[in-house]
Amino acid sequence: MSAIAKFNQRAKAVNSLLCVGLDSDYKRLPQRFRNYEYPQFIFNRWIIEQTHPYVSAYKPNIAFYEARGPRGLTALRMTMEYLQANHPDILTICDAKRADIGSTSEAYAESVFDNYGFDTVTLNPYMGRQALAPFLSRADKGSIILCRTSDSGSGELQDLRVEGVPLWQVVAKKVAEEWDEHGNCMLVMGGTYPAEMQQVRALVGEMPFLVPGLGAQGGNTEAVLAAGLTEDKLGLIVNSSRSIIFAEDPAEAAAQFNAEINAYR
Amino acid sequence: MSAIAKFNQRAKAVNSLLCVGLDSDYKRLPQRFRNYEYPQFIFNRWIIEQTHPYVSAYKPNIAFYEARGPRGLTALRMTMEYLQANHPDILTICDAKRADIGSTSEAYAESVFDNYGFDTVTLNPYMGRQALAPFLSRADKGSIILCRTSDSGSGELQDLRVEGVPLWQVVAKKVAEEWDEHGNCMLVMGGTYPAEMQQVRALVGEMPFLVPGLGAQGGNTEAVLAAGLTEDKLGLIVNSSRSIIFAEDPAEAAAQFNAEINAYR
Repeated sequence: MSAIAKFNQRAKAVNSLLCVGLDSDYKRLPQRFRNYEYPQFIFNRWIIEQTHPYVSAYKPNIAFYEARGPRGLTALRMTMEYLQANHPDILTICDAKRADIGSTSEAYAESVFDNYGFDTVTLNPYMGRQALAPFLSRADKGSIILCRTSDSGSGELQDLRVEGVPLWQVVAKKVAEEWDEHGNCMLVMGGTYPAEMQQVRALVGEMPFLVPGLGAQGGNTEAVLAAGLTEDKLGLIVNSSRSIIFAEDPAEAAAQFNAEINAYR
Repeated sequence: MSAIAKFNQRAKAVNSLLCVGLDSDYKRLPQRFRNYEYPQFIFNRWIIEQTHPYVSAYKPNIAFYEARGPRGLTALRMTMEYLQANHPDILTICDAKRADIGSTSEAYAESVFDNYGFDTVTLNPYMGRQALAPFLSRADKGSIILCRTSDSGSGELQDLRVEGVPLWQVVAKKVAEEWDEHGNCMLVMGGTYPAEMQQVRALVGEMPFLVPGLGAQGGNTEAVLAAGLTEDKLGLIVNSSRSIIFAEDPAEAAAQFNAEINAYR
């Protein structure tokens, strides 16, 4: 099953578009997790067990594991093994924003897809399609390309106009019309820019969007759902990281955010 | 000492602009290195001992270490510790092409600069300056921003015209005029595009360029030196990876390429 089909099947089964970002920054873990040998894994396992009934995707940002050195990456691997063993129907997204030239992209693709076993990865479009070919050519895996990112400074390059059209729109069209040969591409569309999201939805058909920027970053859930949902009420992978994993009650935070999303679906 | 000053001092001391890319892909290591517990480290140590008299910078691409999992990253750390202990005057470049939003960029910067101890890192500009602030604000460290990358598909986004000017030129100007507050920025300028390099040199003054694409990728050394050297015969960090580290005699390959560069200096 393709990554997109996997997400859609899970989204229907548990009535959820929610993705939980496992941005498990060691420095922010509750004290009781810190004395373990692999604190990030123990924390993630706890978060997953609390939240999985409401969740269709988990998205660790690899930076927080790299920051802990080899031990952090072992914790990431343990998290992936735990998910594969216990929740194989939940989509996994490696938030890595990778891009490099051919032989190096091959090494990254091997790492993310084969060693860690992720279903999908986030990618940066600046180096072009040819550089990303080792990811894009993996029909069994998903490529999620940065289009319009969520933070307030993201327009510096992304809003530049190319023959009257903003760069994020050029990227969206390129991905939809040229890069998506295997029907395995998705786009990162920040939840802080619903107007842009609506324009991109009109350009790319049913292509799913990974949506960061709701929750801690302050995006508007109602506006995002109105702008990005497809006709079958799918097409959005709505991420929340810190507002859920560092909530006092992560299960309640996940259930509540999922209910909020569904209220606007 | 700043990263740029460190490179310039070394370049003068050993009369070399050469950077050796430690793209130590496990699958390409000679058989005799493969039975060690950390084959990439043993290989790197051998390469460094062979080549250091001709070298002013070493640049591991982190992808090849990530591809080996936690063990690969331990080998990378051992390589960095070896360089710091034995060759502290040689610049270290983490080729990672990172970019993410604030809190995540902080985790990456901590990983690259503080845990591994690199002097500099390569960065992707697509998410804008604000996203890269945790790197750019480190005055003691160098930020090397992708401008015009070396492979033949790099123009897909980079050649797009923004008010008549190609995107790579917009990036070069932004970095020089807005991002380089601490005088610690450099640019990646592919050695396969000397004409573009000449234009960027005219725009950014003495800012150093990291130049991939000579050697295996086929760029023209004479043209690159003519296009990119500054008045004091510096300003270029000329990288070669596979053509040196997988040469039959890496020491000879490094000495020869350095002599070729100096012949055109």
